[in-house]
Amino acid sequence: MIEAITVQLAERSYPILVGPGALADPSLVTAVRGRGAVIISDEQVAPHWLARVVAPLKAAGKSVREIVLPAGEATKSVEHLAYLWDQLLGWQCDRQTTLIALGGGVVGDLVGFAAATYQRGVPFIQIPTTLLAQVDSSVGGKTAINHPLGKNMIGAFHQPVAVFADTNTLGTLPEREFRSGLGEVLKHGLIVDMVEFARLERELPAILARDPQALTRMIARSCAIKAEIVARDEREGSAGVRAWLNLGHTFGHAIEAGLGYGAWLHGEAVAAGCCVAAELSRRLGHLDQAEVARVVQAFAAAGLPTRAPRLQGAAHYRELMAIDKKAEGGTIRYVLLKRMGEATVSAVDAALVDAALEASFEAATT
Amino acid sequence: MIEAITVQLAERSYPILVGPGALADPSLVTAVRGRGAVIISDEQVAPHWLARVVAPLKAAGKSVREIVLPAGEATKSVEHLAYLWDQLLGWQCDRQTTLIALGGGVVGDLVGFAAATYQRGVPFIQIPTTLLAQVDSSVGGKTAINHPLGKNMIGAFHQPVAVFADTNTLGTLPEREFRSGLGEVLKHGLIVDMVEFARLERELPAILARDPQALTRMIARSCAIKAEIVARDEREGSAGVRAWLNLGHTFGHAIEAGLGYGAWLHGEAVAAGCCVAAELSRRLGHLDQAEVARVVQAFAAAGLPTRAPRLQGAAHYRELMAIDKKAEGGTIRYVLLKRMGEATVSAVDAALVDAALEASFEAATT
Repeated sequence: MIEAITVQLAERSYPILVGPGALADPSLVTAVRGRGAVIISDEQVAPHWLARVVAPLKAAGKSVREIVLPAGEATKSVEHLAYLWDQLLGWQCDRQTTLIALGGGVVGDLVGFAAATYQRGVPFIQIPTTLLAQVDSSVGGKTAINHPLGKNMIGAFHQPVAVFADTNTLGTLPEREFRSGLGEVLKHGLIVDMVEFARLERELPAILARDPQALTRMIARSCAIKAEIVARDEREGSAGVRAWLNLGHTFGHAIEAGLGYGAWLHGEAVAAGCCVAAELSRRLGHLDQAEVARVVQAFAAAGLPTRAPRLQGAAHYRELMAIDKKAEGGTIRYVLLKRMGEATVSAVDAALVDAALEASFEAATT
Repeated sequence: MIEAITVQLAERSYPILVGPGALADPSLVTAVRGRGAVIISDEQVAPHWLARVVAPLKAAGKSVREIVLPAGEATKSVEHLAYLWDQLLGWQCDRQTTLIALGGGVVGDLVGFAAATYQRGVPFIQIPTTLLAQVDSSVGGKTAINHPLGKNMIGAFHQPVAVFADTNTLGTLPEREFRSGLGEVLKHGLIVDMVEFARLERELPAILARDPQALTRMIARSCAIKAEIVARDEREGSAGVRAWLNLGHTFGHAIEAGLGYGAWLHGEAVAAGCCVAAELSRRLGHLDQAEVARVVQAFAAAGLPTRAPRLQGAAHYRELMAIDKKAEGGTIRYVLLKRMGEATVSAVDAALVDAALEASFEAATT
């Protein structure tokens, strides 16, 4: 019951395999085209899964090196990037060396950026082990590190040669991280596919019980949605649909930055951000009250926050958002819902933004 | 008498303007599409040229920031890259900000890599002010920084939006640096264009006298050769013609690394490297003795070294070359001359390589 999706990008097209046991699929070995691979994981994931990835590669005669990094967002730094460069050069890795990212979004983004820049680009494989990474960050070729002045501010577009989303790796994922991943899953429905959104509403009990079949179907569909969007707009052109994927992210990044990264998980911030964006869309006349309530209800049912924390108020949000990568010449461009199942991007009057934020703050507990 | 060349890369095509006064061309201002530009130069170039680049941009209402870095190869480091990222983020530069590299290859490579990675890629303009940068490093989209374990080991492919090669900036270029640039010019002829090579042999006196017309013609033709090769093989595929541009570079990089970067200039090392490659090509039966002598004579007439320094011997060269980016699985792939005006890439028996190096060492003075 492994499902296969293809990200269609001409000569850079690549497969995503989703399902229980995907990381043991024989195509992982054939995806390593050169003689050598370097597997980079973190201290949380490595004890469970590293040996299972290494074994078939070694059995196939590949030279395999391993790097295990500290777990956590702080690893997505220029210091750890430089450490990877140092190791790769110290081992005299050549341009045919494949990097394999085994872990969550932190490992995937960091390793992807190392692969984008080592000797001007080497192949890499994603083995995402969190729900967030499986449905979002491992697909689409965005790689990055954080900077003290902003998240994901330094990076590159670099597509993997293959993605293996093994649902078995979610077995040990803490509940809070699992629910965080559902934030992006619901968002994918909201922006382009209300049939999927309605199905998620119905299947949420099975999904929260981590039923393998429900999980595989959900992840495969979520990856397919993202893959279709990426295929239409690989590099996030300013008029392109890829920006739709950022629904909830402009507010969400402000929440993460304002509270200090790590206080809220990414999917939690995106969930609250989507609810603010829905409320803002209502105030612009795009949605009605019942539709906003449906959005809020879906995220709440997934156990995610639906209210933004007040921080230092709405004006502070706008300051934090002005430095976001999506800002252009100081103008913040908001991803909104034009209707349920269709996003749109536009600048919005600051007073309306403040009003939507204030409405969200009112019942906030953080 | 400004000549225009286009690098043909579909939607990433861009113009190169060559000639006296090119940096004052009005198209520089229009190449800055967003509201803001950041000009990065070095302490040697900035006093002469920075104000002339800034003035028309400011007159056109652009917001312009300036960064002046120390001159020299040591600036092409991860520390200076991080400094550029810090400055850009501190100024809240957005994805529409254009970076302008005003300087030699060090500034161009560093700024190009910063542009490739800042917010996953911003536009950049090259204003190369050395002959080496004008005929080589500013064209083709290779960007990089150095690493203690190897030169240009970290980088990305990122094409500029335009290149302005102003021959007036060569007026203050030290003689040794000027001659270093001629190393790459002669190499461009050797690998694909013997008509040009013969013309360079004839025009060398005018070129060494820095006759503006001879310089403009030479630089334009050298850029055109490189542009044609880049258009055929943008990302240096392993079977591609772009590798031909590395004639003399595998030996040359070993010379630079072995002597310590900066002891020999890049073009000097490439010149000696081309002579070793020619000798190796002869030992493989591709060239005759007279052709090797012609290669050596051309570089000598340009005032460039034609013999490799002994370092710690031929085996040490092979060690240094094994870590070169062009090595694959420990196998060094040599760019050779199949005949005068046509290069080829292949592995070569170590004994033959050693013999060619020994022949070069015999009369070496370093």
